[in-house]
Amino acid sequence: MRNILVLHGPNLNLLGNRDPEHYGDQTLEQINLALAEKADKLGLYVDCFQSNHEGELIDTIQQAHSRYQGILFNPAAFTHYSYALRDVLEAVKIPVIEVHLSNIYQREAFRQHSVISPVAAGVICGLGLNSYLLGLDALAAILEKE
Amino acid sequence: MRNILVLHGPNLNLLGNRDPEHYGDQTLEQINLALAEKADKLGLYVDCFQSNHEGELIDTIQQAHSRYQGILFNPAAFTHYSYALRDVLEAVKIPVIEVHLSNIYQREAFRQHSVISPVAAGVICGLGLNSYLLGLDALAAILEKE
Amino acid sequence: MRNILVLHGPNLNLLGNRDPEHYGDQTLEQINLALAEKADKLGLYVDCFQSNHEGELIDTIQQAHSRYQGILFNPAAFTHYSYALRDVLEAVKIPVIEVHLSNIYQREAFRQHSVISPVAAGVICGLGLNSYLLGLDALAAILEKE
Amino acid sequence: MRNILVLHGPNLNLLGNRDPEHYGDQTLEQINLALAEKADKLGLYVDCFQSNHEGELIDTIQQAHSRYQGILFNPAAFTHYSYALRDVLEAVKIPVIEVHLSNIYQREAFRQHSVISPVAAGVICGLGLNSYLLGLDALAAILEKE
Amino acid sequence: MRNILVLHGPNLNLLGNRDPEHYGDQTLEQINLALAEKADKLGLYVDCFQSNHEGELIDTIQQAHSRYQGILFNPAAFTHYSYALRDVLEAVKIPVIEVHLSNIYQREAFRQHSVISPVAAGVICGLGLNSYLLGLDALAAILEKE
Amino acid sequence: MRNILVLHGPNLNLLGNRDPEHYGDQTLEQINLALAEKADKLGLYVDCFQSNHEGELIDTIQQAHSRYQGILFNPAAFTHYSYALRDVLEAVKIPVIEVHLSNIYQREAFRQHSVISPVAAGVICGLGLNSYLLGLDALAAILEKE
Amino acid sequence: MRNILVLHGPNLNLLGNRDPEHYGDQTLEQINLALAEKADKLGLYVDCFQSNHEGELIDTIQQAHSRYQGILFNPAAFTHYSYALRDVLEAVKIPVIEVHLSNIYQREAFRQHSVISPVAAGVICGLGLNSYLLGLDALAAILEKE
Amino acid sequence: MRNILVLHGPNLNLLGNRDPEHYGDQTLEQINLALAEKADKLGLYVDCFQSNHEGELIDTIQQAHSRYQGILFNPAAFTHYSYALRDVLEAVKIPVIEVHLSNIYQREAFRQHSVISPVAAGVICGLGLNSYLLGLDALAAILEKE
Amino acid sequence: MRNILVLHGPNLNLLGNRDPEHYGDQTLEQINLALAEKADKLGLYVDCFQSNHEGELIDTIQQAHSRYQGILFNPAAFTHYSYALRDVLEAVKIPVIEVHLSNIYQREAFRQHSVISPVAAGVICGLGLNSYLLGLDALAAILEKE
Amino acid sequence: MRNILVLHGPNLNLLGNRDPEHYGDQTLEQINLALAEKADKLGLYVDCFQSNHEGELIDTIQQAHSRYQGILFNPAAFTHYSYALRDVLEAVKIPVIEVHLSNIYQREAFRQHSVISPVAAGVICGLGLNSYLLGLDALAAILEKE
Amino acid sequence: MRNILVLHGPNLNLLGNRDPEHYGDQTLEQINLALAEKADKLGLYVDCFQSNHEGELIDTIQQAHSRYQGILFNPAAFTHYSYALRDVLEAVKIPVIEVHLSNIYQREAFRQHSVISPVAAGVICGLGLNSYLLGLDALAAILEKE
Amino acid sequence: MRNILVLHGPNLNLLGNRDPEHYGDQTLEQINLALAEKADKLGLYVDCFQSNHEGELIDTIQQAHSRYQGILFNPAAFTHYSYALRDVLEAVKIPVIEVHLSNIYQREAFRQHSVISPVAAGVICGLGLNSYLLGLDALAAILEKE
Repeated sequence: MRNILVLHGPNLNLLGNRDPEHYGDQTLEQINLALAEKADKLGLYVDCFQSNHEGELIDTIQQAHSRYQGILFNPAAFTHYSYALRDVLEAVKIPVIEVHLSNIYQREAFRQHSVISPVAAGVICGLGLNSYLLGLDALAAILEKE
Repeated sequence: MRNILVLHGPNLNLLGNRDPEHYGDQTLEQINLALAEKADKLGLYVDCFQSNHEGELIDTIQQAHSRYQGILFNPAAFTHYSYALRDVLEAVKIPVIEVHLSNIYQREAFRQHSVISPVAAGVICGLGLNSYLLGLDALAAILEKE
Repeated sequence: MRNILVLHGPNLNLLGNRDPEHYGDQTLEQINLALAEKADKLGLYVDCFQSNHEGELIDTIQQAHSRYQGILFNPAAFTHYSYALRDVLEAVKIPVIEVHLSNIYQREAFRQHSVISPVAAGVICGLGLNSYLLGLDALAAILEKE
Repeated sequence: MRNILVLHGPNLNLLGNRDPEHYGDQTLEQINLALAEKADKLGLYVDCFQSNHEGELIDTIQQAHSRYQGILFNPAAFTHYSYALRDVLEAVKIPVIEVHLSNIYQREAFRQHSVISPVAAGVICGLGLNSYLLGLDALAAILEKE
Repeated sequence: MRNILVLHGPNLNLLGNRDPEHYGDQTLEQINLALAEKADKLGLYVDCFQSNHEGELIDTIQQAHSRYQGILFNPAAFTHYSYALRDVLEAVKIPVIEVHLSNIYQREAFRQHSVISPVAAGVICGLGLNSYLLGLDALAAILEKE
Repeated sequence: MRNILVLHGPNLNLLGNRDPEHYGDQTLEQINLALAEKADKLGLYVDCFQSNHEGELIDTIQQAHSRYQGILFNPAAFTHYSYALRDVLEAVKIPVIEVHLSNIYQREAFRQHSVISPVAAGVICGLGLNSYLLGLDALAAILEKE
Repeated sequence: MRNILVLHGPNLNLLGNRDPEHYGDQTLEQINLALAEKADKLGLYVDCFQSNHEGELIDTIQQAHSRYQGILFNPAAFTHYSYALRDVLEAVKIPVIEVHLSNIYQREAFRQHSVISPVAAGVICGLGLNSYLLGLDALAAILEKE
Repeated sequence: MRNILVLHGPNLNLLGNRDPEHYGDQTLEQINLALAEKADKLGLYVDCFQSNHEGELIDTIQQAHSRYQGILFNPAAFTHYSYALRDVLEAVKIPVIEVHLSNIYQREAFRQHSVISPVAAGVICGLGLNSYLLGLDALAAILEKE
Repeated sequence: MRNILVLHGPNLNLLGNRDPEHYGDQTLEQINLALAEKADKLGLYVDCFQSNHEGELIDTIQQAHSRYQGILFNPAAFTHYSYALRDVLEAVKIPVIEVHLSNIYQREAFRQHSVISPVAAGVICGLGLNSYLLGLDALAAILEKE
Repeated sequence: MRNILVLHGPNLNLLGNRDPEHYGDQTLEQINLALAEKADKLGLYVDCFQSNHEGELIDTIQQAHSRYQGILFNPAAFTHYSYALRDVLEAVKIPVIEVHLSNIYQREAFRQHSVISPVAAGVICGLGLNSYLLGLDALAAILEKE
Repeated sequence: MRNILVLHGPNLNLLGNRDPEHYGDQTLEQINLALAEKADKLGLYVDCFQSNHEGELIDTIQQAHSRYQGILFNPAAFTHYSYALRDVLEAVKIPVIEVHLSNIYQREAFRQHSVISPVAAGVICGLGLNSYLLGLDALAAILEKE
Repeated sequence: MRNILVLHGPNLNLLGNRDPEHYGDQTLEQINLALAEKADKLGLYVDCFQSNHEGELIDTIQQAHSRYQGILFNPAAFTHYSYALRDVLEAVKIPVIEVHLSNIYQREAFRQHSVISPVAAGVICGLGLNSYLLGLDALAAILEKE
């Protein structure tokens, strides 16, 4: 069985409350549940982890090396400045799909630059929960080819 | 039945020949075929159109208004400068998913800016044929909600 | 009799539908009709042409040389990148008035730069249909002086 | 009767002397006379005021509130830096047409940026005296709609 | 008794009318009254002066030298370009508190740069009338230390 | 009773030692004590928390939601790059006053840009301990209005 | 026999009329004739094509693949923005020499940046008709080496 | 006799007090006296005028036309933003020497750009009183040649 | 005995695995061992600490104050954005040598800017393990002078 | 007989050794020989000079005035910063052809800007030895016309 | 007796020939003669030196230390990039007056930035020969004060 | 025996006099002596050369090819603009260590960009004489590995 690490960056635990116009009204638990169901259909297993701490996300990704075959990552605000997350993703050499709930190209200028994208296998944004679900599809397809 | 217009921008008719490192070795015909199969499963119908002429793409999108419920669009090089395509997409008010075969964030600087993204519902890049297929999934999900 | 070529750039054939907040609710036919009426009063004759194809607009301007004494041009999205249109306007040496329906200085940053203005005799923007009508006045005044 | 305030910015009292290549050889008095004649035809009344003092122009615009229904404004050099004039125009909520005698897009780079345009109803430039006269037409049309 | 010069920049005499979303609905007279009351409690005396003329504000600041121990200054639009006001504030060597009614960091880009702040003792913004009142507290505290 | 969360960003626990020219010679304990005294007079209650960990500050702000009615925040170096802190402040929808001990506009260029200010209700800087105390006044006034 | 495709971009059909100071007084027919003569001497065959339509130039280059061994290209105004032409030149993998009649480095700033040069084998500019003739020499030399 | 208008910009009436490290300890009266003495030796007559009002300086320069053959101008802070002063100097066509007491190239970045210099006959800076005195020499030499 | 704190920033615990072209094939343990040996020869004692958490590095540096006389620091990705680390290094006033294994000037643009360098006593890069060893020499020399 | 000065800038004496991927494997002597042969055919005489000293190149160009009718110049690294070479080329008023062995538009950003091109008659790059040989042709053609 | 070193930068030996519109029609010998005469009147002695070699100018300035009390320097094109000349002028601590024949602010953008000005005592430009002569006056005045 | 070429750029022969705050009070002779002693201990031989002439430094580096195995280079002011030195260092393929006495990151903006660093094996700065001595260590280590 192929294992996928789902990582949610800072403040995504607030989903459902925060700015529903940009992020929809689903909670993180609902997203994780939907991912688990979808994973089941795809023959994948997902572990979900959220943190507001850059360091915890880095630690988690480092330990992913031997246990996961793919990473589905919404870096949230870290998208725009965490070169440390970029470095660890580049180092672990596990395929990463970067996802965003909102279309970051319709928002503030600072949200339109990602330091993570150059080390991702693919990027999906603007589709709400579907950004995550299609990201899982994308990982499944990548793992099939290997 | 819901109809989807699949639009391929300039030089995508050369796929299979051009720079396989960035674009894979599939031909456009193979991509269109894969899209038709996938559409069938999703209860959608796709029409595929490629052009090297910005004006033809604009004409086609204008006429899409009454016949299509969604647009799947790989604007290729027009991504970076065709404000006329941006305007028509904004005007027709049909949901658009922008797709790219390669991860444009790993390439030349000019390829990292899209004038189309701010008017797209979502953006998917870096996943080869899967960028298109997942884009179709995304459109299906959007149309279901309506 | 003095002949004026009225040129409408990409997507202006959609007028009346598209974004009435910026462009008003008149159709292109109504604008052309109003121009013909106004031209009549000014002792001018107008031919109106719209295209979504940069190349067709260039061809039309090239052929204008012997048949028109003035050009009234709303370049729409081509305003921002078509150096080829700029070159042909500079080459034919017919006076050009550039018009815009909306006040482009109140909109997105990219809409605030025109590559056409440096080769126009004058620029009028923000006045809806009146941008066109006053542009015709301006051409009449220029032709009178010659 | 509808009253229009015509405002001329710094150094426009020198017209006729200064740089006829850019500004023509008419004096400000001749422009004001032409505006009064044209206003008469349009059923408008114009008051003309020139000042080299930013503060006097601001004071005048503030007092315009109850006495004028439109402002025709050539801000001259203040176009490029007077955020205080921009603020007062935004505050009085009277429609403003910004005019320039010369085509500012054919001149030095600093003359190509206007801090006034975003708060103007429309902008007309490059047409010499006609920039003013057409500006009056534009105001007449705006007032008619109200 | 310690005297404070309260200076209001251009268009602040319009307060109560202009853009209540940004500036609240209090008039300048009400602000001055509130400042006088608060000053009384703090054992200070305030003189209030508003001008739309940069030169008058400079003259007033120059004469402040011998008569005031502190300046409370809302430079309004002059915030963004009046290096002459900056120079005079630096020259008179009286402590200055710069205040703004609105949070200038939530508005247009040009409003986010102040040429005055580098010569102010402190900056307070975004708090409506309270920006002024707290500025008076700040001056009282600075004068106490001297 | 209204509760205020006072947050001190990285290295502020060193106050009293670090660079007294910019930050004064008071320790953080003395600041917290002064805040408690002032709060008491204003009928407020303050809880003070300092951390060098961006993640801990985010966690603390998230939990503030149900327990505090206002936040007084000196983000220190996080001012300049922590979009994650900006996001959480925007999400919790509690009024925030951003404070800085020194006048950041008189220091290095990088200190003159705040990613936090656009989501703060107000900003106060340059007044040493008084920046905090006046910030508390500002929060009291905001809470009174609600 | 080795075949060369000579491509002339937008408005070059106007040569002889347009701005002789920059472009000389030769017509395009004369240039094509001179190229045919020179080609004859070099044992080459040339086909010449001019278009004002970006799309037609792209189509023509795509079809060049099997019929031409080299391309001599004056992209005219497309030099500065047609990433679509850049992409097709990169894709067909036929050696391209980019030529310009005028020295683009002595003209407006926008004319000094070419998006085509990075995919050209060589660039020749400023020499009028000779830019083309020497470009043919350059192609002959490249083909000889292969 | 040849008459020279000496103009001092904003805050120069404070000389002797303000920042002696940059501006020396001479008062404006002493500078004017020294200029009068030097003028006498050169067979020139000087009128000296200082103002903190941009508008007054513009008015004065406009009236200089018939009465003065040269202008010696220290624009002080207006150096950096008064395009209105630039315009009037360009219009009156009297030779202008721009002078600065301090070496503006050793100070803040904003002081290193002059909008006046492009319309001055010459620029002299960094030499204290001597910037003015040598400026008078320069005007004498220019007038001699005429 | 003089004690040196050796700090390794995020992801340096992965050394030996990650991108050997840039970082060599030594593990962090081997580097620490080599540093201990070298320290021994220089009469120094080293403590080595690695963390992926910015906050932990700040805490550690704060506590270094009384126990270490020098810091040898490879900030890794934090080099490019951690103003909080910059502040703590400036505050503790212990000499710091910044080291990098690779020559950061031969890599991506973002890696060529260090926010740490302005507060370091010296910077050494590009020499692999030797960057660390020479950094220890540098600290020894600095401590000798004190 | 017409004499041509061939100038080679810094490090071109190393040709054949240095980076053959960019510069080919010919030595400077071979290039000079090929130029002499070609010159002979064109009825020209060439003198070749290489220097690593900007000053020597300037001296040589100054003395070229009376002895040479054309200059063929590869400025190498001086291309990017030697305004002194630009000035001398502009001053001597002998036609100059600037040549580069490699296509500078495919290399580092700093190599894509030439301070020499604006004063050259023409520019040829990317063609190896042929850049020089075609440059000689270009000079022959220019001299023929005179 | 006080000795002054007069330094002329690259290509100034061509004066009289080169671009008389910018540089006048005097030769360098005539300038040197005029300087010697003027120096005589001022009780100074001048040595004049011109070089096209940056290194020779640096050597000459280094040796100036014990023999000259002032430097009059027209750096010509080196003005814009020679940080090495800037360093030596800063090091020798002899007062330097930078002069330019033409008004560099009316010319190409690159000529408007001087890397020398920040280390000069004063700058004089735009006055032809008089820039030099007044520069000598300025040095005389500086030496008198010492 | 391994030979090292030590190169000192412009004005370093003035060391001991110039700006001791940045460069210390050692003379170049003392630095060379210290390097010779250190070299002796490392089994290396050093030749030291200083020049103010960019061309002489290039000549010397070109000739280094057969005689030296490493280069220790303080390019001084040439650091910031000499692309010619960069080219020769890249060409000779001898390992280079770039050293600076002062921490260039704490000084003027122009000193923080090095055009040399991208072709150096390593960079050491801020450590005074030790920058050189550790640079020698670094070269010794590099040569050992070969």
